[in-house]
Amino acid sequence: MTYRAPVKEILFYLTEVLDAGRISQTERFAAATGDMIKAILGEAARMSEEVLAPLNVPGDLHPAKLVDGSVQCSPGYDTGYKVISEGGWAGMSGDPKFGGMGLPLTLTSCVGEMMSGACLSLALNPLMTQGQIEALEHHANDEIKSLYLPKLISGQWTGTMNLTEAGAGSDVGALRTKAEDNGDGTYSVTGQKIFISWGDHDLAENICHLVLARLPDAVAGTKGISLFLVPKFLPDTDGTPNVANNAHAISLEHKLGLHGSPTAIMEFAGATGWMVGAEGGGMAAMFTMMNNARIGVGVQGLSQAEAATQKALEYAMDRKQGRSPIEGGTGTILDHADVRRNIMTMKTLTASARAVILDAAISVDLSRALNGDDGQVQAARGAFLTPIAKAFGTDIGCEVADIGVQVHGGMGYIEETGAAQYYRDVRVTAIYEGTNGIQAMDLVGRKLMDGGVAAFGLLAEIRHTAAIAEEAAPDLAAFLAGAEASLSATVRWMLEAEINDRFAGAAPFLRAFGLTLGGHYLLKAAMAGPVRMPLAEFHIRQTMKQVDGLCHAACEGASTLYALDADALSA
Amino acid sequence: MTYRAPVKEILFYLTEVLDAGRISQTERFAAATGDMIKAILGEAARMSEEVLAPLNVPGDLHPAKLVDGSVQCSPGYDTGYKVISEGGWAGMSGDPKFGGMGLPLTLTSCVGEMMSGACLSLALNPLMTQGQIEALEHHANDEIKSLYLPKLISGQWTGTMNLTEAGAGSDVGALRTKAEDNGDGTYSVTGQKIFISWGDHDLAENICHLVLARLPDAVAGTKGISLFLVPKFLPDTDGTPNVANNAHAISLEHKLGLHGSPTAIMEFAGATGWMVGAEGGGMAAMFTMMNNARIGVGVQGLSQAEAATQKALEYAMDRKQGRSPIEGGTGTILDHADVRRNIMTMKTLTASARAVILDAAISVDLSRALNGDDGQVQAARGAFLTPIAKAFGTDIGCEVADIGVQVHGGMGYIEETGAAQYYRDVRVTAIYEGTNGIQAMDLVGRKLMDGGVAAFGLLAEIRHTAAIAEEAAPDLAAFLAGAEASLSATVRWMLEAEINDRFAGAAPFLRAFGLTLGGHYLLKAAMAGPVRMPLAEFHIRQTMKQVDGLCHAACEGASTLYALDADALSA
Repeated sequence: MTYRAPVKEILFYLTEVLDAGRISQTERFAAATGDMIKAILGEAARMSEEVLAPLNVPGDLHPAKLVDGSVQCSPGYDTGYKVISEGGWAGMSGDPKFGGMGLPLTLTSCVGEMMSGACLSLALNPLMTQGQIEALEHHANDEIKSLYLPKLISGQWTGTMNLTEAGAGSDVGALRTKAEDNGDGTYSVTGQKIFISWGDHDLAENICHLVLARLPDAVAGTKGISLFLVPKFLPDTDGTPNVANNAHAISLEHKLGLHGSPTAIMEFAGATGWMVGAEGGGMAAMFTMMNNARIGVGVQGLSQAEAATQKALEYAMDRKQGRSPIEGGTGTILDHADVRRNIMTMKTLTASARAVILDAAISVDLSRALNGDDGQVQAARGAFLTPIAKAFGTDIGCEVADIGVQVHGGMGYIEETGAAQYYRDVRVTAIYEGTNGIQAMDLVGRKLMDGGVAAFGLLAEIRHTAAIAEEAAPDLAAFLAGAEASLSATVRWMLEAEINDRFAGAAPFLRAFGLTLGGHYLLKAAMAGPVRMPLAEFHIRQTMKQVDGLCHAACEGASTLYALDADALSA
Repeated sequence: MTYRAPVKEILFYLTEVLDAGRISQTERFAAATGDMIKAILGEAARMSEEVLAPLNVPGDLHPAKLVDGSVQCSPGYDTGYKVISEGGWAGMSGDPKFGGMGLPLTLTSCVGEMMSGACLSLALNPLMTQGQIEALEHHANDEIKSLYLPKLISGQWTGTMNLTEAGAGSDVGALRTKAEDNGDGTYSVTGQKIFISWGDHDLAENICHLVLARLPDAVAGTKGISLFLVPKFLPDTDGTPNVANNAHAISLEHKLGLHGSPTAIMEFAGATGWMVGAEGGGMAAMFTMMNNARIGVGVQGLSQAEAATQKALEYAMDRKQGRSPIEGGTGTILDHADVRRNIMTMKTLTASARAVILDAAISVDLSRALNGDDGQVQAARGAFLTPIAKAFGTDIGCEVADIGVQVHGGMGYIEETGAAQYYRDVRVTAIYEGTNGIQAMDLVGRKLMDGGVAAFGLLAEIRHTAAIAEEAAPDLAAFLAGAEASLSATVRWMLEAEINDRFAGAAPFLRAFGLTLGGHYLLKAAMAGPVRMPLAEFHIRQTMKQVDGLCHAACEGASTLYALDADALSA
């Protein structure tokens, strides 16, 4: 089957559950009216289903490859990318001054889900560009902006992020790439970066690398890091990319999945670059970009969950097998309770992930559009939700894709079926843009530095949902309130605990928060559309029953984890 | 690094936790003394580390392939198989009358873990042969036994199981392969079988297919199925395989993993075969074999969990990154609480899986070696533990391999690292030999048909562990007792419930049982070797906290699962 973009489902959540209309009520996003959103989602759906989805399997079977120093993309990717760029999808949230549509992140996320659900490998390309556009809008000087932004927003050029080095992954501060001042406003950048998504390709006329590097006299650690823009081809005075820079992909990784997306080792050999933002401000600039990129990666996880669910459901509805255990069954495996459990789990987790992610994006949009306290409240809310959106969204992506393989039985293990590709492709989303462990540490560390204000604000929203559901669904309301109480107690414990004790419980805490938010959204959805009540019921009465246990685990502290030393562990 | 066979750990569990000495106290297995077990495990460890482990990556990179109708194996597999067969490993549990060593399944399972941990693809070959040896020992007539068993036990010939057809997977009864009586004691077998592991290869001089098929006048469903032995080459009077049979691999599957193991579509075109067991007794014969094969597949899951844990731990101890969050840290990522949590989870789940599986195998051995009631009690105990050993063991295999990828960060997604191969290879174990959903249904269906006797017997053992641990570890004992109480209540609920309501809760019930058994074994282990107390503590205080929630989910019944029809689900 072909991927079906879940436009109806997305619109339902935006309007009926998440009150996304608040975005278009702001001045900044006044243009993003309901009608416009519908039109854009419809267009994106059409492109995703018709143009991108057919490229998913070819990209997997025929990975991008490095030939004579240049990357050749998977078959059909050139056409696909052309449609993306000419449709303005890369720059849809970019500043209108430079040709963008200035649309909210919420809408970009919805479109991103559809593009990624259709073809994750190719959709990663404009996602990287979007991050770069955002970084340049915030941190670049006017000259760079006016030269680069129009090209990036139009999709003529694409962007990459160059952080990781062999000895510096999650610990970015350990990086060693050097940048030396040439005295003419440019810098010579020298070093090797690894895991560079779309580091090289043949889809666009130029590739702009944002590279973290150190000046020769920079202090150690993250404060000595600056950000540089290093294009593959140096633009001449009228912006034409004419002269090859000393920035090259020297090899591509052989990965578990995402084969259509070339992951390069980049060699910068005295490459010419321009500083973006302040000296020593590289990490700050990177964080601007990374914050929303984290939501974008959550979207990637979600997208694969949705696609895997569609595929599994179609198979289950088609595959005849065994005596039906129910009266009036169809004779397909969907009649079987265990398959039903799998499908219900897939659907409810996917819906939960989507709602968390879109809710995070809405807060980010509102934080940009609203002034004063309102804006700050939304900023803190969005910041708290962001690591959950990333880690919960991508964990769900991996889990749902895994269940999808299982629903297919033996066929799931056969690559031609396609279920395994989702399972392989999505796996990286739990790793990159900050591993999900790092996200959890961010949640219980930095995101509780406000004394729990943002966390308790969200918990109050959950209590509110429980309160208004009390009449229509008293048992679900009670279970939701119970989970909220466990979470509240856990937040209070975290606020009192030493930082490493928090870190020890970070992963179960994030999981518990995600699952409970899922119950909150699904219950809201069920009240807005009663046909959805069984989904809320399944999630709250079954999956969410893990929350208490997770909260207990979250409050155990670090000591047990260190009771065995390395020798004892490896004995 | 290279795989290290966990001999010490296995011996500790056998002797200190599972009282495996009971096996050698029986007449049947009197030869399997402690010294002999140690010697055999030592030999198997050496072969696994030195001969098999080096074949794991080559098998993945260079899959078996079908060339001119014959399968060519991955590089080095011929040498590896030669060592396996010449060492007598394929037939170690076979009847000594036919050249076997008559060793207990428990020991075969320990050896199987090491061989599979080293190279899952190749180790699957003798595992299939072991299943066939068992089926023939139980069901074949003397003529077949004396011709085939010596060849299979010596590893000169290998065995396959041919159940699945395109339209008949978990629903074996739907199969359509025909067998027609030739009137000379032979049958002509015609049909196509899919997913045949090691269906063809160039490692042995003959391949013996056990094929489920129907006689022309057979009744519909499983009762019309008989079992046939169909060799690739027909043996002449002195047993030399001389004439090619009409049994051919017509294609190999392109799989997610296990690339070194050729998975064939087998075409039987009037192939000559001999009936094994009674007419219409095919399923019964197959079940004899499948029961213990399920333990063998549990072992496969376990083996990958162990290998993935070793690999992740080695990486974590080696990878320097970030400021150490603890005093006196090593500067590696193992200092980080979240990485510690991952490693502790890997170690405790792996130990839990190993203990459940070996405990099941011990009961199977005792059931064969003991007479009367004692034997029957052990048989029922082993039968109850078997689906847990299979499903819990392989789920743990998948989960631990998944965590292993995560511990490696970005490197985990790169195939050369090797973590991803475990993740891909192990995935099939949750599917084949009866999907884990089928296992769970077996557990709450057939395995509760004794009115819960076997289940309550195991729960009493868990209570006993809690009681004797009360002094040394009062909180862990209390938590274990609490989990046992939840499980007991769930068993009582299951015994009262309609069958489809049981099926609806089968998966969480099996999971809860597996986790609680894990706590029981880990606590016993901690009392026998106090250095292990932190492992018991972590598992019981953290992972096992899911048991209550799982038990709640297990008792929800089926109605919610069917509240949405297929249209609503796919809307």
